[in-house]
Amino acid sequence: MTDQERSEEKSECVSLSPMREAVPAPPECERVCVFGTGDLGLSLGLRLLQAGYRVVFGSRRPRSSLLLHGAQVLGHAAAAQSALLIFIAVQREHYDFLVPLANQLKGKVLVDVSNNLRKNQYPEANAEYLQSLVPGAEVVKGFNTLSAWSLQNGPIDANRQVYICGDSVEAKQVVMAVATKLGLSALDQGSLSVARELEDFPLQLFPQWRLPLRIAIGLSAAFFFYLLIRDIMYAYVTQGEDISFRIMVSLANQVCPIVSLIMLSLCYLPGVLASFLQLYRGTKYRRFPNWLDSWMLCRKQLGLLSLGFAFLHVLYTLILPIRYYLMFWVTEHTVSLIRENRTTTFDTTTAWRGDSYLSLGILGFGLYVLLGITSLPSISNVLSWREFSFIQSKLGHLTLLLCTAHTYLYGWNRFLSSSIYKWYTPPGYMLCLVLPSVVLLLKLLLITPCVDRTITRIRQGWERGADQRNPKDSQPLIP
Amino acid sequence: MTDQERSEEKSECVSLSPMREAVPAPPECERVCVFGTGDLGLSLGLRLLQAGYRVVFGSRRPRSSLLLHGAQVLGHAAAAQSALLIFIAVQREHYDFLVPLANQLKGKVLVDVSNNLRKNQYPEANAEYLQSLVPGAEVVKGFNTLSAWSLQNGPIDANRQVYICGDSVEAKQVVMAVATKLGLSALDQGSLSVARELEDFPLQLFPQWRLPLRIAIGLSAAFFFYLLIRDIMYAYVTQGEDISFRIMVSLANQVCPIVSLIMLSLCYLPGVLASFLQLYRGTKYRRFPNWLDSWMLCRKQLGLLSLGFAFLHVLYTLILPIRYYLMFWVTEHTVSLIRENRTTTFDTTTAWRGDSYLSLGILGFGLYVLLGITSLPSISNVLSWREFSFIQSKLGHLTLLLCTAHTYLYGWNRFLSSSIYKWYTPPGYMLCLVLPSVVLLLKLLLITPCVDRTITRIRQGWERGADQRNPKDSQPLIP
Amino acid sequence: MTDQERSEEKSECVSLSPMREAVPAPPECERVCVFGTGDLGLSLGLRLLQAGYRVVFGSRRPRSSLLLHGAQVLGHAAAAQSALLIFIAVQREHYDFLVPLANQLKGKVLVDVSNNLRKNQYPEANAEYLQSLVPGAEVVKGFNTLSAWSLQNGPIDANRQVYICGDSVEAKQVVMAVATKLGLSALDQGSLSVARELEDFPLQLFPQWRLPLRIAIGLSAAFFFYLLIRDIMYAYVTQGEDISFRIMVSLANQVCPIVSLIMLSLCYLPGVLASFLQLYRGTKYRRFPNWLDSWMLCRKQLGLLSLGFAFLHVLYTLILPIRYYLMFWVTEHTVSLIRENRTTTFDTTTAWRGDSYLSLGILGFGLYVLLGITSLPSISNVLSWREFSFIQSKLGHLTLLLCTAHTYLYGWNRFLSSSIYKWYTPPGYMLCLVLPSVVLLLKLLLITPCVDRTITRIRQGWERGADQRNPKDSQPLIP
Repeated sequence: MTDQERSEEKSECVSLSPMREAVPAPPECERVCVFGTGDLGLSLGLRLLQAGYRVVFGSRRPRSSLLLHGAQVLGHAAAAQSALLIFIAVQREHYDFLVPLANQLKGKVLVDVSNNLRKNQYPEANAEYLQSLVPGAEVVKGFNTLSAWSLQNGPIDANRQVYICGDSVEAKQVVMAVATKLGLSALDQGSLSVARELEDFPLQLFPQWRLPLRIAIGLSAAFFFYLLIRDIMYAYVTQGEDISFRIMVSLANQVCPIVSLIMLSLCYLPGVLASFLQLYRGTKYRRFPNWLDSWMLCRKQLGLLSLGFAFLHVLYTLILPIRYYLMFWVTEHTVSLIRENRTTTFDTTTAWRGDSYLSLGILGFGLYVLLGITSLPSISNVLSWREFSFIQSKLGHLTLLLCTAHTYLYGWNRFLSSSIYKWYTPPGYMLCLVLPSVVLLLKLLLITPCVDRTITRIRQGWERGADQRNPKDSQPLIP
Repeated sequence: MTDQERSEEKSECVSLSPMREAVPAPPECERVCVFGTGDLGLSLGLRLLQAGYRVVFGSRRPRSSLLLHGAQVLGHAAAAQSALLIFIAVQREHYDFLVPLANQLKGKVLVDVSNNLRKNQYPEANAEYLQSLVPGAEVVKGFNTLSAWSLQNGPIDANRQVYICGDSVEAKQVVMAVATKLGLSALDQGSLSVARELEDFPLQLFPQWRLPLRIAIGLSAAFFFYLLIRDIMYAYVTQGEDISFRIMVSLANQVCPIVSLIMLSLCYLPGVLASFLQLYRGTKYRRFPNWLDSWMLCRKQLGLLSLGFAFLHVLYTLILPIRYYLMFWVTEHTVSLIRENRTTTFDTTTAWRGDSYLSLGILGFGLYVLLGITSLPSISNVLSWREFSFIQSKLGHLTLLLCTAHTYLYGWNRFLSSSIYKWYTPPGYMLCLVLPSVVLLLKLLLITPCVDRTITRIRQGWERGADQRNPKDSQPLIP
Repeated sequence: MTDQERSEEKSECVSLSPMREAVPAPPECERVCVFGTGDLGLSLGLRLLQAGYRVVFGSRRPRSSLLLHGAQVLGHAAAAQSALLIFIAVQREHYDFLVPLANQLKGKVLVDVSNNLRKNQYPEANAEYLQSLVPGAEVVKGFNTLSAWSLQNGPIDANRQVYICGDSVEAKQVVMAVATKLGLSALDQGSLSVARELEDFPLQLFPQWRLPLRIAIGLSAAFFFYLLIRDIMYAYVTQGEDISFRIMVSLANQVCPIVSLIMLSLCYLPGVLASFLQLYRGTKYRRFPNWLDSWMLCRKQLGLLSLGFAFLHVLYTLILPIRYYLMFWVTEHTVSLIRENRTTTFDTTTAWRGDSYLSLGILGFGLYVLLGITSLPSISNVLSWREFSFIQSKLGHLTLLLCTAHTYLYGWNRFLSSSIYKWYTPPGYMLCLVLPSVVLLLKLLLITPCVDRTITRIRQGWERGADQRNPKDSQPLIP
C-alpha cells in the first residue's frame, strides 16, 4: 500500500455526512489556509468554505486527491504564501516542519488551535512554542475549545463563544473577523501568555463544582458514620439487635435530607453574611473577602446539589410502604392488637402533625424543583434581573423556611424527651436544624423595616459618612 | 480621607475577577467614551476593550489612578471630545453635569443606559430628560436590560438581545454596530418616545404570568372553600365529627387535581374557539377579538401552572400510604374484619377500575411532563414548526383526554348515587369535569373530516365567498 | 365589498401586537423589496425595517393603504426595479405573475422563502421552478424554516440558524449579509439543487426519533404479548383464574423497566462495538459501517426514550401500595395469619435484599435523570468536551451498572427455581438482563489497562503497522 493510496483512503473516511459540500468560491473572496488534514483541519476547512472563504490546505502530499470539494491542496510553502491567515491544525510534536517555512510565514497570522492530552504536558504553552519556532509570524491562540464535531454541526448545538489571545492586536482582529463570519463570537483574553490557560480549558472537569461536591461528600460521609454509630451500632451494642439492613434505605433516607437542608442553608448563608458586612461597613464599594467571594460564586452549585439530595429523599420516602420491613411490622402490629385484644383510638393531633409535616415537605420540594428549573441557562436567560432575583431570593428563602418547618415538625415534641439522646448524642435531624435556623433568623433581622431601609440605600450607592454634597458618578449594580 | 484616596479604594473594590485585563488597543481602533465609573461603567468599558475598542473614561477626577488596564481616563470635556459615541453610565440625578458640556457633546451619540428603581419614578423617561438637557446630541436609549454582571461574564450565560430606541436612525446604527461587536444583537424599537417602555422593562415582574397566576389562585381559593364547607364543615355540622386535619393533605389533594384539569382545559379552549371563529367567519384574515388574542398568548403559562398543580397532586397521592390516617384505618379495618368474623371477596371489577384509573393518571402525567420539557426554550428552539405543533396540539389534546378519563374513572358510578350530593352540591371532581368535557367535544367536532377539510383550507388562505379568479399574493402562516 | 376594502381590512387583521412600528429609514439605507403581503411577507418587512433597511412592498394593488408604517408600497414592476434583493413571499401557484417582470428582475437576487404543504407536492423544488420562470435572476432558497411568528418575536425564542442555497455565490453572500443584520446566522448548503431538501425540512417530523421510537414500540409490543401469554393467559389456562386486571398496572410495570433497560444498553452498545472495531482495525482513520454510524447518531434519542420508560416504571412502582389489589391482599394475609394462628419471623436477608434492590433502583434513576438533564441543549452547550464525555460515558455506564444490579437483585435466587419457567419460558426480567450484561462485560474488557492503553493510543492518531518515521499532519478528534 503506497502512501498515496493510504492517504486517499483516509480522506474518504472522514465523516462529513451531516453537511453538504460547498460550491467553490469566486476569486475575489478572502483566502484562508489550513495546515493539517486531520478531523479538525477538515472540519475547519468545510466551515470556512460554507462561510464563503476560499480555502487552501497545506499538505506534505499535495498530489493526494481533492480533500474537500471546493478547497485547494498545495504544498506547505505554496499554501503559506497564498493566504494571510493560516490555521495550524497539526499536533504539537510535528510543529518543527514549520521551521523551514520561516520565510513564507513572515508576517502571517498563525492560529494555534491545538490542545493537549493532559495539563502540564509541556513546559510552555503550544502557542508560545509555535511563536518561538516562527518568531516572524504573529501567533494567535484560539478555537481550541471547539471540537471538530461542533464545527461540522454548526453553532446551534454547540457553544458559540471562542476565546482568543495573542500579542498582536491586529492579528487578533483578523481572527475575530473570521470567527464572526463563522457564526462564532470571539472574546479577546489578552496576550499570548494566557495561551496556557486557554489550552487547559478543554481539560477542565467541572472546576466550579469541586468545592460544592467536596462539601456534599464530606457532609454525607460524616453524617453516615454518625448515624451508623448512633442507630445501628447502638442497637447492636445495647440490645444485641442486628438492624444493619437499615443502612440501605433508612440510613440513606436520613443522610439525604440532612445534607440537603444543610447545603440549602449554605447556599443562602453567604448572601446574608454579605448583607451584614455591607451594613457594618456602611458601603457597597468595598470588595468582599476572598472566601466570601468564592462562596457566593458557587451558590448555584450548592443549591443544585441540595436539590439532588432532596430528590433522593423524596424517592426514598415514597418507597417506604413497599419495603418488606414496613409491611412486616404493619402486619405484626395488627396481629398483636388482636391477640392482645387492645384497641387504638384515632389521635387528631397526630394526624394534624403528620399531615402538616408531609404537606410542608411537598410544597417545599415543589418550590425546590421550581428553583432548579429556573436555574437552567435557557430559562434564566429570558428572565429580567428583577424576575431572577425574585425567584432566587424570595422563593429561595421561602423554600428554606418550608423545609426547615418540615424538619421541625418531624422532630415535634421529641426534642424534649431524653430517651432520644442515645450515648448523649442528639439525633441527626436536630443537628441539621442549627444552620437553617441561624440563616432564617439573620434573614428575618435583615427584612425588618429599619435594617431593610439602610441596606437598600447602601445598595443604591449611598455610603455612611460620605460627603453628601459630592455627587458620585456611579450607578448601582442592581438597579 | 481625601477624595482621591476614597476613589482609589473604590476602583480597587470592583470585582473584575472572572475576566482578564485586555491589552491596550492601537491608535487606529475606534474610540468609545464612557461617562461614569460605577459598576456598569467599568463593566461596559472592560467589555469594549475586549472587543477591540479604545476606551476613554470621563471622570471628574481624571488624576485618579488608572481604572482599567488599557483604558484612558480624562476630564469630562476632553473625554467627550475624543469620541463620537458616549455611554452615559451615570445616575439620572447627576445628569445636570452634562449641561455645561453642551458644546463638546454637539452631534455626539449619547447612549442612556440608566434604569430606575421603580415605575413612574420621574415624569418623563431618563433618556428624554437627557435629550432635553443636551438638545444638540443624539440620544439613544439602550443596553439598560443588561446587568454589569452579565456584561462581565459574557453572553454565554446571559441574554444576548438588547433593545434600543432613538430619534436618529444614524445614531441608532452606530449603537447597533457596537452592540454587534460586543456579541449582542440589538433590535430597533422605534423613536425615543419608546424609552419609557424600555426603562420599565427591567422592573417587570412576570407580566405574562399575572393573568394565569390570578386564575390559578382564584380557582384554588374558590375550590378550597367549596370543599372545606362541603366536606369538613358538613361532617362537623351533621355528625359532629372533627376531621379538620384533612385540610393539610386530603383537601389539598382535591384542590390540586381540580385546578390542574381546569387550567389544562383553559389552555386548549382558546385554540378551539379560534377555530370555530375562523369557521364561522370563513376566513383567517380577520383579527381575533382582543380577549381571545391575550388568552391565546398566555396558553404556555396556563399549561405550565397546570403542570405544577399536577406535580403536587402526584406527590400528594404518592404519600397517601405513609399517612397516619390511612395506616390507622387499614389496621382498624383488618381488626374489625376479624373481630366481626367477616370475610371479603376480591372484586375484579373494582381492581380493573382502580388500576385503569391509576394507569391513565400515570400516562397522562408522563405526557404532561413531556409537554413541559418541550416548552423549555432550548428545546422548542430546535424543533421545526411542524414538530412543535405536533407536540403541543396532538399530544396536548391527548394529555387532556387521558386526564379527563382519569377523573371520570375516579367518579365511576358514584355520579348516580344521591348520597354524594351533600347539601345538594356536587363533589369537586364533578364540577371540574365540565370544562374539559366541553373542550374535548368541540375538538372532536373539529377533527371530523368535513369540518377539518374546511378549517385546513381556511388556514391555507382560502376565503369563503372570495373571488377565486383573483389570486392573492399571500402565503399561509402555518405551512 | 370592493377589492380595496377587503385588502384594507386584511392589512388591519395581521397581528403585529408584540412589536412596535419602526421609524422610516433615511434614503441612504439599503433598500430591500418584499413581494407578497401575507403574514410572512409582512413579518419579514417589519423585521427588515427594524434592522434599519428601507422596505418596499410589491403589490398588485399599490394604491391599497400603507401596510407597515415606514414601508413603501409600489406596483410589482416599480418595486422590482427599486432594489437588488427581492423576497418572494408568495405561494408557488402564483409565481407566474413574475414572468412578465422578467426585464425588471434581470440580475436581481430573488429569495424564495416558500414552503409546501406536504413532501413531493410538485415535481421540482419551488426555488428551481422560480429559477426556470425567471432565468435572468439569481434565485436563492432560504429563510423557509422561519415562521412568521418567530420573525415577529425575534430570535430569543426561536432558532437563529437559517439555511440557504443557490447557484450564485455572490447572490448568496448578499442574502447572508441581510441574515446577519437580522440577527440570524445563515449557513450555505450548496447549489440550488439542494432547495428540495431545504423545502422538505419544515415538513420533517422528528426524523432522528423514528428509529428509536420504532425500537421502543416494537420492544414494548413484543414484551407485552410475551408477558400477557406467560402470566395472564397461563393463569387462566392452568388455574382458570381471571387476573386480566393486572394488565393495567402489573403488566405495564414489567414492560416499562424491561424496555428501559434494553434501550439503555442499546444506547451504550454501539460505543463499545466501535471501540472493538477500532481495536481490530488498529486505526481510527477508517469509516465505521453505515449501520454503526446511524446507530451512534441516535444514541441520545435511545437514552431519552429509555429515561421516559424508567420514569413510568418509577410512577407505576410508587402507586403500588394504593392499589386495591395490594391493600386487599395485605389485609387477607393478616387475617389469615390470625385465623390460622401462624407467626412470622423477620428475615434480615430478605430485608437486606429488598432494601438494596430499592436503593440501587433509586440511585440508578437519580443518575438517569442527571444524564437526561445534561443532554438538554442549554446545558450541554456550556459543558467542555471533557465534561460532556465524563457525564455521558462514565456516569452513563455507572447508571447501566446500577440498573442492571437492581434487576439482578429483583431476580435474586429465583433464577434457579424451575417453577418460574412457566411453559418453559423464562420470565421477562431474565430476558432483559442479557443485553446489559453483555455490554457491561465488553466495557469491562475495554477498561482493563492493556486494552485501554491501545485504545487511547489509537484515538490519539496512532495506527498499527503505520510507518512511525512518517509524521502525520493530523490532530485527533477527541483531544
